[in-house]
Amino acid sequence: MFLSEFLGTFILILFGLGSIAQVVLSNDQKGIFISTNYGMAIGLMIGAYVAAKSGGHLNPAVTLAMCVYRKHPWRMLPAYVAGQFAGAFCGAAVVYGNYMSAIDVFEGTASARTVPGFSPRATAGVFATYPATFMTKTGEFFSEFLATAILYIGIVSLADKKHGAGNLMPLGLLFLVFGLGLAFGSETGYAMNPARDLAPRLLTSLVGYGSHVWTAAGHYFWIPVVAPFLGALFGGFLYDTFIFTGESPINTPWMGLRKMVFLEKANERSMV
Amino acid sequence: MFLSEFLGTFILILFGLGSIAQVVLSNDQKGIFISTNYGMAIGLMIGAYVAAKSGGHLNPAVTLAMCVYRKHPWRMLPAYVAGQFAGAFCGAAVVYGNYMSAIDVFEGTASARTVPGFSPRATAGVFATYPATFMTKTGEFFSEFLATAILYIGIVSLADKKHGAGNLMPLGLLFLVFGLGLAFGSETGYAMNPARDLAPRLLTSLVGYGSHVWTAAGHYFWIPVVAPFLGALFGGFLYDTFIFTGESPINTPWMGLRKMVFLEKANERSMV
Amino acid sequence: MFLSEFLGTFILILFGLGSIAQVVLSNDQKGIFISTNYGMAIGLMIGAYVAAKSGGHLNPAVTLAMCVYRKHPWRMLPAYVAGQFAGAFCGAAVVYGNYMSAIDVFEGTASARTVPGFSPRATAGVFATYPATFMTKTGEFFSEFLATAILYIGIVSLADKKHGAGNLMPLGLLFLVFGLGLAFGSETGYAMNPARDLAPRLLTSLVGYGSHVWTAAGHYFWIPVVAPFLGALFGGFLYDTFIFTGESPINTPWMGLRKMVFLEKANERSMV
Amino acid sequence: MFLSEFLGTFILILFGLGSIAQVVLSNDQKGIFISTNYGMAIGLMIGAYVAAKSGGHLNPAVTLAMCVYRKHPWRMLPAYVAGQFAGAFCGAAVVYGNYMSAIDVFEGTASARTVPGFSPRATAGVFATYPATFMTKTGEFFSEFLATAILYIGIVSLADKKHGAGNLMPLGLLFLVFGLGLAFGSETGYAMNPARDLAPRLLTSLVGYGSHVWTAAGHYFWIPVVAPFLGALFGGFLYDTFIFTGESPINTPWMGLRKMVFLEKANERSMV
Repeated sequence: MFLSEFLGTFILILFGLGSIAQVVLSNDQKGIFISTNYGMAIGLMIGAYVAAKSGGHLNPAVTLAMCVYRKHPWRMLPAYVAGQFAGAFCGAAVVYGNYMSAIDVFEGTASARTVPGFSPRATAGVFATYPATFMTKTGEFFSEFLATAILYIGIVSLADKKHGAGNLMPLGLLFLVFGLGLAFGSETGYAMNPARDLAPRLLTSLVGYGSHVWTAAGHYFWIPVVAPFLGALFGGFLYDTFIFTGESPINTPWMGLRKMVFLEKANERSMV
Repeated sequence: MFLSEFLGTFILILFGLGSIAQVVLSNDQKGIFISTNYGMAIGLMIGAYVAAKSGGHLNPAVTLAMCVYRKHPWRMLPAYVAGQFAGAFCGAAVVYGNYMSAIDVFEGTASARTVPGFSPRATAGVFATYPATFMTKTGEFFSEFLATAILYIGIVSLADKKHGAGNLMPLGLLFLVFGLGLAFGSETGYAMNPARDLAPRLLTSLVGYGSHVWTAAGHYFWIPVVAPFLGALFGGFLYDTFIFTGESPINTPWMGLRKMVFLEKANERSMV
Repeated sequence: MFLSEFLGTFILILFGLGSIAQVVLSNDQKGIFISTNYGMAIGLMIGAYVAAKSGGHLNPAVTLAMCVYRKHPWRMLPAYVAGQFAGAFCGAAVVYGNYMSAIDVFEGTASARTVPGFSPRATAGVFATYPATFMTKTGEFFSEFLATAILYIGIVSLADKKHGAGNLMPLGLLFLVFGLGLAFGSETGYAMNPARDLAPRLLTSLVGYGSHVWTAAGHYFWIPVVAPFLGALFGGFLYDTFIFTGESPINTPWMGLRKMVFLEKANERSMV
Repeated sequence: MFLSEFLGTFILILFGLGSIAQVVLSNDQKGIFISTNYGMAIGLMIGAYVAAKSGGHLNPAVTLAMCVYRKHPWRMLPAYVAGQFAGAFCGAAVVYGNYMSAIDVFEGTASARTVPGFSPRATAGVFATYPATFMTKTGEFFSEFLATAILYIGIVSLADKKHGAGNLMPLGLLFLVFGLGLAFGSETGYAMNPARDLAPRLLTSLVGYGSHVWTAAGHYFWIPVVAPFLGALFGGFLYDTFIFTGESPINTPWMGLRKMVFLEKANERSMV
């Protein structure tokens, strides 16, 4: 499954970072902010189709939550996460290669590579996320935590065997991520995915953006790595507590009470 | 079903208000008006998938009409409506918490919280709807009434067992609500949903926006609460009169005439 | 089927004209040109679901072509066309009523109602289409003819039993009409539908826009009425000549040759 | 299948070039850059439905890769490619005819027809692609190569029998091409299709744009012809190496190792 998650995440990153690069480097002439929301969303849709046979997680936080709540085999976790990080790193490298001359032109000097906060023409934000300047650490963490929780709830709802979107689930993912970018994308850039943020950031540190990518915004880099894991786990907790009636570590104790108090199971299909 | 409607409406509001917050608070830098139309529409799509097992009403007006026209059990009405209001309130609270610092920056002073008509930098419109200044009370009421009638007709058409969108019905809802925002969103903000408007308005009155949220625009607050109920009921009346051939309080008397005069049933599938 | 086509076309026009009204009357503050493309497209999608049991033609030109090429019963033509015109007229009336005060504000004087070419603040274009000033009569006719031909080819492709979009055919219609608005909407406003253009134009002539709606742009009004009928018929001719292998007045003589010369039927599903 | 690919590509080009024409010739008043991304994407969606029975390749590079990797009969290659080029040429001719007066107005003088780099009001870019001025030949080639590789990987993923989008595959194509335009459209115009670029370019050379269409940007014209073929072949190589488990020239030798090293086949559907 390493190969599948690798190629899927590779595709996700190509679309996601490519669309940001196009908007930034063309000075909004070849796209607008909303294009970048679409780009990342379409990347996840296509990536999910590409990696369908491995479940199209493309996100270590999702894979972890699947292990915790859905019996995704723990022994596969390393292969999944490795594939996701490797795919994201290679995707970022290809986007960097493809847009290298445009970056030279945009930054003003060939081989100039700068990070937000250190230059008005910084391009490091094409690859990794950097928070809005007015944000507090708590606010940054909460924003990534919240966005990932919603992401996970959306994913499992779309993937529901009975009520979900079936083979068009990846199309649903498109709108899910597009909406997250529209609603929670302005404060921290909605990474929601440790592989999506850390791997491209690592690349930038290697190709000339230097150590600023790690120190910028008060060593922000760790937040889009840690918050998504906790957010996905919390989202899974909410979903299994409020909605899921199948087997889950949450439901084993909780279903009885739920059936009693909230008339679970009653009226399964009320809208016709 | 309380839990299901709660979480679904919670998600609806997170996307809907989050996208308005992002556009307003970023001064249109991180989105444009159309983003807010998308945000609310995507929120309903995802919310409907999340709350699929309770029918994904997410709207007291829809639940009422379902009770009247589709035998949705009246005894479930309170649980549904309670879940919808509670979910909307909590969703608004989370959006408020997430954007608190951005609101401080936008309004200009920390803890300043103002309402449209009382300040040029008012942010109360992020949470509840406020009408355009040129509107008359009649115009406001009609606009909400009309939008909700169309919403309900669209919902039941998309949910039709034979011709509807099946498991992609929530995707259809996305475009339905998106279109309503494009076509009828400019005069009153197309609340179309008492829970979506009243619960967030209540929140704002509690977190510092004060009593203006109730008095603004000539005590406008009651219109997006009352008009949607009547609009949905009228939409259901139109649909069952013109289209629906199944069992309905409208059809019991009316079908005979319809069959006779309008050749009902003839030529069920003419486009191939 | 009169009722079904009536309500479907009513919904189509509510979304279509409503979105134009919102963009024009808000001076592009509550939408942009592309919103109007979406509005009409979404209107057709929702209208097609609403009128699914009558085939969701919502367009006299489509109904005529269906009679000619697909054995749609001629005896139903009058009921269909009557429903389409009546629905479009009522839809336009409701949009007019809903936006009346906004029109007063936009035109500058209450009850002022002007037509493009006679005033810079004209609002008649919200309801009926008016061509770009540089267009020749031939160009205008060709543009409407072409757009409707493509529309019809798209419709029958999406409705194909074997390869079409099935119950999501109306979603396909959304993108079909959206694309036509993006590609052929700038010269004549892509009416592509006699009911969509003539009925609202009639309404405007009755509510105060006067006879200019008929005389404007060299009596343009007849082109969006006549060209769509011919365009749809031509589109049907092309589709049945190039693609359709089922029963059609075109194919009866032509299939033999086609099989022989173009290896028809061979390799039905080559993309896997 | 010639007829099917002809009409499908004809439709693709009508939407694709029509939307570019509308945006350029209306000075962005009737659309924005993103409209052109939508136009080409919708063109492929509708074209794929129109040409469904021939597989809806609409692209010689895709047909070649299908012959190499998916046993698409080589003997059909000429008919497919001929249909694709003829359809693209006719589509470009119809768009040219439809927008002729608008081109006269835009270029400033009737019958003036200019090429990017030779005039600020050049319109040749409506029909064929011209690269950004800062691009190197290598960069241009790589950009087209990369975009086509992603396109092909997306196509085969969407067309996968088990995990693909089924009859909504063309809808997936819409978002695939839309995303490619958002992410890789700014440097070379993402032709990704020899027929889409060469046939319209040939048309422009015949209707008055002259030999500049061949010489512009250092004889750029050959890159969008050659690069897509190699890109599609490379994409097919990646997909069959990383994902595809069916019969393919790649897999025959490679599957054994893959099964062993990467636990292929294990855990086919991990997301539920």
